[in-house]
Amino acid sequence: MSKPPQFPPPGARTGLEEGVAFTPKFDANGLVTCVATDAASGEVLMVAHMNAQALAKTISTGEAWYYSRSRGALWRKGDTSGHTQHVVEMRVDCDQDAIWIKVEQVGGACHTGRRSCFYRAVPLGEGAAMTLVFRDERVFDPKAVYKD
Amino acid sequence: MSKPPQFPPPGARTGLEEGVAFTPKFDANGLVTCVATDAASGEVLMVAHMNAQALAKTISTGEAWYYSRSRGALWRKGDTSGHTQHVVEMRVDCDQDAIWIKVEQVGGACHTGRRSCFYRAVPLGEGAAMTLVFRDERVFDPKAVYKD
Repeated sequence: MSKPPQFPPPGARTGLEEGVAFTPKFDANGLVTCVATDAASGEVLMVAHMNAQALAKTISTGEAWYYSRSRGALWRKGDTSGHTQHVVEMRVDCDQDAIWIKVEQVGGACHTGRRSCFYRAVPLGEGAAMTLVFRDERVFDPKAVYKD
Repeated sequence: MSKPPQFPPPGARTGLEEGVAFTPKFDANGLVTCVATDAASGEVLMVAHMNAQALAKTISTGEAWYYSRSRGALWRKGDTSGHTQHVVEMRVDCDQDAIWIKVEQVGGACHTGRRSCFYRAVPLGEGAAMTLVFRDERVFDPKAVYKD
């Protein structure tokens, strides 16, 4: 494996928040949180993590790469399913520990077959029933896409 | 302090992903990630964390509550600034470890004075310069809002 990409270390708060230097603040596990939204609809498609290598690859290729904590592996979104994410724009938040990418999503982002991972609503209100409400239909059959 | 709210523990994967029981999967620190988007524009406003108490309060009151890791405290968004978030809809993701709330944001979500915390873009492309580009203007003066 080649040398992992280096980002400059985060500095003091003023520079982090008001500067133009991109100095992502990776957590103790070397990860930043990434939110992917549909560039057209604004819908949140998924929340995942990137390590320095995934972040560098996403920037250089314009395709979304993540780091899977469960599999302990770098992962190009869509490698198995074909459901890639072309990155239209990348943003970083004030303290540089979260990334937002606006993407053109091929197929569906969720391994369950839905367009978005957020396919269930949580009812609100005092004493609200903790019963989820399905909002989105499947856009693909996960059994046909993920073959073991 | 009253007894912290209890959510049922997450079960097996099938129920977690395809069931209607809301069983949020808190991490080792007792937190879930929460993404807040502007209900009107779809813009990502902020990424923060909720513990069980913040999540329960958000559900019961319809106003966004978070847990501040740096301050180690429960926090109603807008308590200091007045920039509250009225929750229009709450969603949970497939494995129930991330929450998405669509909110009506009063003022700006970011403590730096911008509407969104994601006010800087990261240039994309092979060999892209790691120089951030400011995209959003301030909507309020943080010095006037956060008085020590």
